[in-house]
Amino acid sequence: MKNELKMNKEKIKIIPLGGLEQIGMNITAFEYEDSIIVVDCGLAFPDEDMLGIDLVIPDTTYLKDNIDKVKGFVITHGHEDHIGAIPYVLSEINVPIYATKLTIGIIEGKLKEHNLMKTVKRKVVKYGQSINLGCFRVEFIRTNHSIVDAAALAIFSPAGIIVHTGDFKIDYTPVFGDAIDLTRFGELGKKGVLALMCDSTNVMREGFTMSEKTVGKTFDHIFAENTKRRIIIATFASNVDRVQQIINTAYKYGRKVIIEGRSMVNVINTASELGYINIPENTLIDIEYMKNYPDEQIVLITTGSQGESMAALSRMAASIHRKVTISSDDTVILSSTPIPGNEKSVSRVINELTRKGANVIFQDTHVSGHACQEEIKLIYSLVKPMYSIPVHGEYRHLKKQGELAVTMGVSPDNVIILSSGDVLEIGEESAAIVDHVQAGGVLVDGLGVGDVGNIVLRDRQNLAENGILIVVMTLEKYSNQLLAGPDIVTRGFVYVREAENLIEEAKQVVTEEVMDCIDKRISDWGKIKMVVKESLSDYLWKKMKRNPMILPIIMEVE
Amino acid sequence: MKNELKMNKEKIKIIPLGGLEQIGMNITAFEYEDSIIVVDCGLAFPDEDMLGIDLVIPDTTYLKDNIDKVKGFVITHGHEDHIGAIPYVLSEINVPIYATKLTIGIIEGKLKEHNLMKTVKRKVVKYGQSINLGCFRVEFIRTNHSIVDAAALAIFSPAGIIVHTGDFKIDYTPVFGDAIDLTRFGELGKKGVLALMCDSTNVMREGFTMSEKTVGKTFDHIFAENTKRRIIIATFASNVDRVQQIINTAYKYGRKVIIEGRSMVNVINTASELGYINIPENTLIDIEYMKNYPDEQIVLITTGSQGESMAALSRMAASIHRKVTISSDDTVILSSTPIPGNEKSVSRVINELTRKGANVIFQDTHVSGHACQEEIKLIYSLVKPMYSIPVHGEYRHLKKQGELAVTMGVSPDNVIILSSGDVLEIGEESAAIVDHVQAGGVLVDGLGVGDVGNIVLRDRQNLAENGILIVVMTLEKYSNQLLAGPDIVTRGFVYVREAENLIEEAKQVVTEEVMDCIDKRISDWGKIKMVVKESLSDYLWKKMKRNPMILPIIMEVE
Repeated sequence: MKNELKMNKEKIKIIPLGGLEQIGMNITAFEYEDSIIVVDCGLAFPDEDMLGIDLVIPDTTYLKDNIDKVKGFVITHGHEDHIGAIPYVLSEINVPIYATKLTIGIIEGKLKEHNLMKTVKRKVVKYGQSINLGCFRVEFIRTNHSIVDAAALAIFSPAGIIVHTGDFKIDYTPVFGDAIDLTRFGELGKKGVLALMCDSTNVMREGFTMSEKTVGKTFDHIFAENTKRRIIIATFASNVDRVQQIINTAYKYGRKVIIEGRSMVNVINTASELGYINIPENTLIDIEYMKNYPDEQIVLITTGSQGESMAALSRMAASIHRKVTISSDDTVILSSTPIPGNEKSVSRVINELTRKGANVIFQDTHVSGHACQEEIKLIYSLVKPMYSIPVHGEYRHLKKQGELAVTMGVSPDNVIILSSGDVLEIGEESAAIVDHVQAGGVLVDGLGVGDVGNIVLRDRQNLAENGILIVVMTLEKYSNQLLAGPDIVTRGFVYVREAENLIEEAKQVVTEEVMDCIDKRISDWGKIKMVVKESLSDYLWKKMKRNPMILPIIMEVE
Repeated sequence: MKNELKMNKEKIKIIPLGGLEQIGMNITAFEYEDSIIVVDCGLAFPDEDMLGIDLVIPDTTYLKDNIDKVKGFVITHGHEDHIGAIPYVLSEINVPIYATKLTIGIIEGKLKEHNLMKTVKRKVVKYGQSINLGCFRVEFIRTNHSIVDAAALAIFSPAGIIVHTGDFKIDYTPVFGDAIDLTRFGELGKKGVLALMCDSTNVMREGFTMSEKTVGKTFDHIFAENTKRRIIIATFASNVDRVQQIINTAYKYGRKVIIEGRSMVNVINTASELGYINIPENTLIDIEYMKNYPDEQIVLITTGSQGESMAALSRMAASIHRKVTISSDDTVILSSTPIPGNEKSVSRVINELTRKGANVIFQDTHVSGHACQEEIKLIYSLVKPMYSIPVHGEYRHLKKQGELAVTMGVSPDNVIILSSGDVLEIGEESAAIVDHVQAGGVLVDGLGVGDVGNIVLRDRQNLAENGILIVVMTLEKYSNQLLAGPDIVTRGFVYVREAENLIEEAKQVVTEEVMDCIDKRISDWGKIKMVVKESLSDYLWKKMKRNPMILPIIMEVE
């Protein structure tokens, strides 16, 4: 590309709207004149300091402000971090969604739940097929990943071709369908690619990610060694290939299969309807009929491999699952690795299962869906991009991919790490961050979208750590006479029975301060509240080295 | 032992008082007639669901109830999970503490902080030395661990010998002192050992734990490759050998060493005073003088390798450290692996450091202080115990060690896994759990010990997730007339400006319910509160699918 005589002087804009600050929330806008296309529309799960938050969706203010330009959403695959925000975002920005068949199937499950099937238009795209969206043309390229029907995108723009890998790995022997279309990556490389946006998740790992099929072999060994026992396998609900392999092994060993856990049932139903999973007749049974079969004829596939407290496996481990009781006759396989942050919950589940006598297996029962270093290098060697824009990973992962890209011939100046809201203007002549737009995460709590912000979270943090102490009193208007109280009510602060004296003393502290204010004819209740707060705060710190939230409330009676 | 003709019919009791339910809190009582000795006195750090709790100490009610029997505390080594509760427990149970020199030195640091130096008696014991405590004799045996001066214990009791390894590894080339006294373990095995209580932490790992010295070699390589850069190394404050190796490498490469972080400074001072660390003259400098040296002449050793938010390294990463600014001239080494549960915090720190341009290294820069499978098997092969009582680990680790013990010749019936409070009666004839005493964790929050229990924690959890909505009103006594309110105050619930209408509507809901109660002449305020609570709860769930804590407060004016 660098050798071409005529240089293309056009530029496009690339704007990650979720991106780095909120890992997992994948959504990127591509803009040229009056056309915007958006790649993916994912949600993020809350960090541990986002107390009480259910999920985080991207701030799409920029898209709403430019709604006339937005031509469509192009989705790479059906994982939550790429599709989860669709019901929230597409109900406000009503443009079509383009994706492969299974991806659309899974999206439709979400749209049904949100009663949006009539609102949101969607179109199935096949591998190799292109769609025209304003000034852009987007081609879907076959890849492999831990969910079937994943696609990379070749985005043909006036400024050149951008290749976006989506999440991918290279699997020469996939369970379903064919291996990644490496030839197409090579052909695009030959044409000349402006920028490669490549998955960074596993960039710290050397070598190659193993084929999904290797897990099937492990299952076979485990089934062969556990012929007399019930087998329970927990894995990701969306890993259709994994479930397929379990079903194959179960069939081989003459076992019936039960699928347990709502999200697992949903995905498998969709995959089955669309022909992405092959279940032999009379293999699947309902959990109600489990009791009709001896242990050695049962395989239970379940959610909860991440130790999620409400998922089926955790309920089994905690003896609160209504249909399944764990015993020393069970072999439990965790077919997954803990996502960072879930290590302790997973350990807890393993300990509980072990305590109930189960044989728990969690080694060699999982392979990743993301490319390791050698795979990433292979893609670079085929695509030969002018620019490297690493995506999908923490900052250190993006940085590391940038280093790999340089070893693969990308100029160090042409490695670009974008943060949420950065506006990258990029073309063959130059690339620079020229602006920064509103972007990032919007917190969802119940039905509320965005009504819980930093102040509320800070209060929740404070309440969580220290509890609250409410001081309430009734004053007479004008006279300022203390008609009732001060009363003190606490929650989450101290076990009150043991602290009766403390509360009594605290009341005296408050009463004295209030009487003092009244004597001084202070009629500014804000001031009285402040005095109460400070004196109580001092008292409690001295007495117990604690800092509860103190909330003085004054009622006024005329 | 099994071949001896005369069987010893005596039995002793072994009672873990911290133990399994609270990982990390090591404290075990050994009892025979009128003698009780206690091994270790550790604290645990709170689980993520123990909101606002500073630390957890063992419930020693059983010891207090039998205080006349308690002869002393025997401590294996100076880590928090083995000594941390001493200031709390020993201030109530005043018996002497026995430990090796550095362990006593570290304990004394704690006693000083709690002003208990005059209260708590302590005695330094040397390796190979025995102490008599009532019917027990306890011998200290040299081991290796990630803190110097760690000891295993041979407890000679009327029922036979118990070998307790403490936390240990086998290091043939330790940085300080000698390798573990394997011969003594073998001699005890020859005499006949009733039970082995062995560290299970690393029992899931095959092979051998590497020598601490291997880390020194890695440091040498890193120093050689980073001659032009400042080097910052984060590690565990108590790992004196690690610090020694950093100092040695710094000295070799002509760098000055700065020690940063309060706990690190404390431990290194103690180790230095007692001769456990050797610091060449003019090597250590105060952080104040750092500015007088170029980057390439500085090594900073710091706390915070676990991503602890208030530790020095986290403050540097977040740009809130007063003396150290991270830049692309820094190489930062994390000389540790994340303790389960800390993975995300550690990642956050690495990302922040990387973003500031630092070169962050965290591979091959740490070895564990705990024995892997081959080391554990070696100890079993030497000690040849009749019973195996695995200690120090999660349930699955204890279970796994039990399995190893069986492969080493222990009868499957003689593997005993104890829970907190179990009273094990054990002798050559038999071993059985005969009773269960009060034990487990006591929560410490500020100065309060045990005043935060389940109710308070449940409230904190609820407040953390949903916030609080306080409804306050003033009623006239007898007449029940509503004099003021209802007012609604919320914290951690919703951003009020955006929800003004909601709060107004909620007030109306409450007012209607209260007026209705007054009309019906309901004078039971408990009932009014209940009605308010239920109606508001319904309203908020319908409106926003949220469940804040609702706290109605009625003030009474005569």
